[in-house]
Amino acid sequence: MNGQIRFLEKGTVTSPQGFQAGATFVGMKSPAPDKYDLGIVYSTRPCTCAGTFSRNEVRSFAIHITEEYVNKGNVRAVIANSGIANAVVGEPGRKDALEMARLAGVKLGIPQEQVGVLCTGLIGVELPMALIRAGVPRVELSEQGGHLFARAIMTTDTAPKEAAVAYSSGGRTITIGGVAKGSGMIHPDMATMLSVLATDAGVEAGFLRQALKKAVDRSFNMISVDGDTSTNDTVLLLANGAAGGAAIAASSPEAPLFQEALHEMCIYLAKAIVRDGEGASKIFEVRVEGARTEAEASIAARTITNSNLVRTAVHGNDPNWGRVVAALGRSGAKVEEAKLSFYVNDVCLMEAGLPVPFFKDAVVQLMRQPEVTFRVHLGLGEGTATAWGCNLSEGYVTFNSAYTT
Amino acid sequence: MNGQIRFLEKGTVTSPQGFQAGATFVGMKSPAPDKYDLGIVYSTRPCTCAGTFSRNEVRSFAIHITEEYVNKGNVRAVIANSGIANAVVGEPGRKDALEMARLAGVKLGIPQEQVGVLCTGLIGVELPMALIRAGVPRVELSEQGGHLFARAIMTTDTAPKEAAVAYSSGGRTITIGGVAKGSGMIHPDMATMLSVLATDAGVEAGFLRQALKKAVDRSFNMISVDGDTSTNDTVLLLANGAAGGAAIAASSPEAPLFQEALHEMCIYLAKAIVRDGEGASKIFEVRVEGARTEAEASIAARTITNSNLVRTAVHGNDPNWGRVVAALGRSGAKVEEAKLSFYVNDVCLMEAGLPVPFFKDAVVQLMRQPEVTFRVHLGLGEGTATAWGCNLSEGYVTFNSAYTT
Repeated sequence: MNGQIRFLEKGTVTSPQGFQAGATFVGMKSPAPDKYDLGIVYSTRPCTCAGTFSRNEVRSFAIHITEEYVNKGNVRAVIANSGIANAVVGEPGRKDALEMARLAGVKLGIPQEQVGVLCTGLIGVELPMALIRAGVPRVELSEQGGHLFARAIMTTDTAPKEAAVAYSSGGRTITIGGVAKGSGMIHPDMATMLSVLATDAGVEAGFLRQALKKAVDRSFNMISVDGDTSTNDTVLLLANGAAGGAAIAASSPEAPLFQEALHEMCIYLAKAIVRDGEGASKIFEVRVEGARTEAEASIAARTITNSNLVRTAVHGNDPNWGRVVAALGRSGAKVEEAKLSFYVNDVCLMEAGLPVPFFKDAVVQLMRQPEVTFRVHLGLGEGTATAWGCNLSEGYVTFNSAYTT
Repeated sequence: MNGQIRFLEKGTVTSPQGFQAGATFVGMKSPAPDKYDLGIVYSTRPCTCAGTFSRNEVRSFAIHITEEYVNKGNVRAVIANSGIANAVVGEPGRKDALEMARLAGVKLGIPQEQVGVLCTGLIGVELPMALIRAGVPRVELSEQGGHLFARAIMTTDTAPKEAAVAYSSGGRTITIGGVAKGSGMIHPDMATMLSVLATDAGVEAGFLRQALKKAVDRSFNMISVDGDTSTNDTVLLLANGAAGGAAIAASSPEAPLFQEALHEMCIYLAKAIVRDGEGASKIFEVRVEGARTEAEASIAARTITNSNLVRTAVHGNDPNWGRVVAALGRSGAKVEEAKLSFYVNDVCLMEAGLPVPFFKDAVVQLMRQPEVTFRVHLGLGEGTATAWGCNLSEGYVTFNSAYTT
C-alpha cells in the first residue's frame, strides 16, 4: 500500500466531508427493532456519480432505475432497504422502486432522479410500501450516520462492513469512505453484493466512471463466495468536491493517487465480504503471475478461487496443489506444465511442472492461519492478477439446504 | 427411448461380439487383493476407433499418447490402471505411458499403436512400472471380462458402472457395450472420468468420430459432480464389425438408429456417474426449453446443475426457484424475465416471470425422490438441452477436506 494513503479509525461512508446518512427499522427483515432495514445516504452538495451493476440477465427494477439515474449524471443520494430484493415481481417492482426514489427525494428536497435505489433480500416478494412510506420520514441524517446505514443494508452478514481511507494532496485532505454488504445468496435467496462509496474529492464524471470500473474489476469482481451472482449487485460512487480544489480528470497529476486510494478502499470491502462469506472461517488469496495477459491471469485466479475442490482443500488445511493445477488447466488461461510453479505463502510446492518435496506439517500449519496466499507462476508473460475466496465448509451446505418456509 | 433399442441384462463392454477383457491386482490403489487396478479390453478383430479427451491444459501423457494413437486410426485395445493418474510427473510420464501400451501390445500380439492407455488416480506420483510389468501377463482375457475391467477402473466409485444396449437391423443384432468410472476429483486428487465403449457394428471411421462427439456432448459433457474437469478424462469407442454387414456411414439408413443407441448408452453411463458422485444421494435433471439456440440451452442447463446454491437447495428438498432463476440469469443464455416459466417435475412454480402460488408440502415431497426434474422454459426459441447434476452435501465437503497424508 502506498505510504500516503491511510485508513481512518471508525471510517465509514460519511467520513468524507459533506455526506450524511441515517437508518430506521420498518420490519421487513426481522421483527427485532434493532434490525435496521431502511437507510439513506445523502450528499449536501451536488455530486458526480458512477455505478457498476449486476450483469445477471434477471435484474431487480431497482437496478434498472438506478442505472438510468446514474447515467443522467446527478445522483447525490441513495435509499436502500434490506429484507426484500424487489426482484422477479413483475411491473409492481418498477412502480415501487420509483416510489422509493420519490420518497427519498421529497424528504431530501431533491428531484427523484438524484436518488439511487438499492434493494437486497427475498426474491419474488413485493416490497411493503406502506411500511417504507411510514419509515422514510423517520430516518435521521447525520455525519455519523454511515454506521447505521452499514447495518441497514446487512442481510446474513455477521458484521457491518465499512471503512474510509484518506490522503493529502495539494494541502487538502481527500477522503474516500464506503460500506458494503455480503454476497452469499442465501435462504431464501437473500441475494446481493451492495456497496456505496463516497468521496469529498471533486472528480470529473468520465474519470470517475473509469476509476470505479478499474477498482471494481480488481476488487469486487475478483471475489467469490459461491460463484453465484445476484439480481441486485450494485456498487455506487458519489464524489461531491467538498474537500475543495479542481475536479480530478484522467489527465490530472492527482489521478493515480485517487485511483490507488479507491483500489485500497474497494479491496478492503471486498475482502471483508469474503471473510464474512456464509460458513466461511478463512480467506485465501490467489495471485497468478506470469500469464500471457492480464485477462488470462484474472480468469485463472478466479477459476481457482471458485473451485469447490480447492475450497474444500483450504477448509481442510490441505496443501493440495494437484487441485489448484487442475482448476488452472480448465480456466481458459494458457498453461505450459513444464513452466508452472506453485507456492503456499512463500513455500514452493511445485516448480518447473514437477512436485517439490516439502515438509508437510509446516505447510499445513501455514494453512491453519485465517488468511493464506496461493501463488501460481505460469512463466509465460507479464500478466498478473489477484483474487480472493473462502473455504467451503459443511456449515455452508447446512445453511443453504435449509428449505424455504 | 426408441422401442427398437433394449438394455441387455448384465451388459458390459464385452457384451458385443468379438470383445474380450480382464483385470488383475497389482497393488497401486489399495493393498486389498480384491481391488483390481489394472485391466485390458481387446477386440479380436481390427477396429475403427474414436475418442474424446480432456480439454484441461494440464493433461496426463496417457492422454497425449492415446489421442495420437486414436488419430492413427487402428486402436483395438485399451490398457487401464487406477490408483495413479500418471499426470504432472514430467517426462517419466511419457515413457511410462508408452511402456504400458508396449506391454499390452506384446501380450496381445499387436503393435503398441493399437493400444489406448487410460490412467486415473493420484496426480504428481509416478507409476510403479515394476508392478505393472509383472501384472500385465497375469491379466486373463475372456468374453465375460468386462465386469472385471469395470471394477479395475474404479477409484472412489462405490459401484461399477457398466451396461449394454442392442437393436436389430437388417436381420443382424447390433450391440454397444460400455463401462465408466466416476468424475469426482477426490482426496488426494483421484481425478478423472473414464469410459470405454465397444460395438460389434462395423462403422466407417469418420462417422464413428462424429457419432461419438455428438453422444458425448449430450451425455458426459452434460453432467457435473463438482465442476472440476481432470487431467485424464477420456472416452474411447471401438467398432469391430463382428456383427457383420456393411460399415455404417453418415449417409447410411442405419446411421440414426446407431446414433440413438449410442446416445442411450452414454446417457446411462453419465447418469450412473452423477448418481455415484461424491457425497451425492440424489440426481436432478435440468431440462431447458425455448432457448434461442441449442448452445444457449446447453450452457443454461449446465450452469444450473453446477450452481452450489441450486445443489444445496436440492440437498434440502427446497423448491427454491429464485436460485434457479439467478443461475440462469448469469449463464450467458438470453433470458427475458416476463417469458420465463419453471416446473419441478410437472408442477409449475413460476409462469410468465411471476411466482405461482403452489402447495409447498407436495413439491417438497416430490423433491424427496432420488430423482427430480427441473424444467425451465425460456419462451424465446426452439433450443433445448438436458443436463444432470447431484445434490451438494455436507458429506462432499467432509470427504474432500480431509487432507493429503
